[in-house]
Amino acid sequence: MKIVLIGSGNVATDLGKAFQNGGHEIVQVYSNSAANASKLAKELKCESTHKVDMIYPKADVYFVAIKDDMIETFVKKFNWAGRIMVHTCASLPMDVFKNSTKEYGVFYPLQSFNKERKLNMSTIPVFIESNTTKTKKILKELAKCVSDKTYEITYEQRLTLHAAAVFANNFTNHLYKIASDILRTSGLEFDVLKPLIKETADKVMTLDPAAVQTGPAQRKDVKTIKKHLDLLKNFPAYQNIYEQLTESIERQSR
Amino acid sequence: MKIVLIGSGNVATDLGKAFQNGGHEIVQVYSNSAANASKLAKELKCESTHKVDMIYPKADVYFVAIKDDMIETFVKKFNWAGRIMVHTCASLPMDVFKNSTKEYGVFYPLQSFNKERKLNMSTIPVFIESNTTKTKKILKELAKCVSDKTYEITYEQRLTLHAAAVFANNFTNHLYKIASDILRTSGLEFDVLKPLIKETADKVMTLDPAAVQTGPAQRKDVKTIKKHLDLLKNFPAYQNIYEQLTESIERQSR
Repeated sequence: MKIVLIGSGNVATDLGKAFQNGGHEIVQVYSNSAANASKLAKELKCESTHKVDMIYPKADVYFVAIKDDMIETFVKKFNWAGRIMVHTCASLPMDVFKNSTKEYGVFYPLQSFNKERKLNMSTIPVFIESNTTKTKKILKELAKCVSDKTYEITYEQRLTLHAAAVFANNFTNHLYKIASDILRTSGLEFDVLKPLIKETADKVMTLDPAAVQTGPAQRKDVKTIKKHLDLLKNFPAYQNIYEQLTESIERQSR
Repeated sequence: MKIVLIGSGNVATDLGKAFQNGGHEIVQVYSNSAANASKLAKELKCESTHKVDMIYPKADVYFVAIKDDMIETFVKKFNWAGRIMVHTCASLPMDVFKNSTKEYGVFYPLQSFNKERKLNMSTIPVFIESNTTKTKKILKELAKCVSDKTYEITYEQRLTLHAAAVFANNFTNHLYKIASDILRTSGLEFDVLKPLIKETADKVMTLDPAAVQTGPAQRKDVKTIKKHLDLLKNFPAYQNIYEQLTESIERQSR
């Protein structure tokens, strides 16, 4: 399949590589920054442009992988009639394309993309939505390059999934950061926590998180909770987070 | 070495097995429940008792692995003079033994113990504290059965470490639980999040959590944050947690 990538960030980069590895052709990269477009195009060995009206007209599908809050404005810039338009983001309905073209969809890979880290694409579930059978077929075909698992879900489900992912990924990562800040006050390295972090994640691969909850909140150990809150007196924001999460665990272990 | 285990819970069980595998002898298990003492003793093929005054007098070391808030009361029950007493918990100073015997210490393995799950002991760091050189030597020797890594730390450091571990383990697990609850409202399985959970943990094995933070809070995507908060309207406690963690990430990404 011939694909145009619109965007040059982490998602565009990783998807572009995965589609190429799956035997598809990236014909062009568009970015409003000529330098960024050219940089990713060089990596993918394809053409690039920073002009919307120079976007290649005959691709099988156009992947819009730009920031969520810029998509609507971007789509309105141009007449996409006759093209299959797809965005890759969690928080927008596929209807953002409704007034621009007849065929469109969403291709949402559930993973956290970072420049610093190469992903194992095959383990990333892909969630798709489409308004025509042809679009669905194209998206399913492309999903195979990224994942063993493809799901068809609605916009409401995608939004719910994203909110859940914010807890399981963004907030979890922030808890690691908080742990690292706390350790530093005592001259301890973040390294000492790594086996525990790994085990915490590994455990829920096979067991229900509710069933393996441990800790002072779970066993209602108020003395230890008080000691920890005292210890966090120089981190009022962390103290609040500690209290709220403790109360939430206590409520559920009643 | 001859070891008496005081307690029959997850920590006593896992440590008992690890010490045996390391070539040491568990001479006896004590628990105030005769049934629990006998059950673990059977597993470890050793004696058991539920009477404090029947505890074997000539062990090299006595491991007190009972609930944090029961240790002080337990220690006062008996005269431990002449014995090396060690507890395994995060939140108490070693001084709980001060009025009972001359030699004592702490042996704190940083891991979350569950009956449901076999641990890979070699990756668990052990944190020790002791008031005599002889005790330190014994604890270092025993730590080898559990871990490649042993650290000597103070009570204050141990308490800080524990608070950090509560964030990285107990609270993280609770976030997984919240994510699972949210998914359920939309008919989605927790399974779809597992690759993301694994990647989130794997990432900080080599990269600094602050450097790999992503998500709506990090990129100040207020529209998406608002959509998520609306979605959580039936979970006011989760809404509060979402808001606090979002604010905390926003503060740090300024």
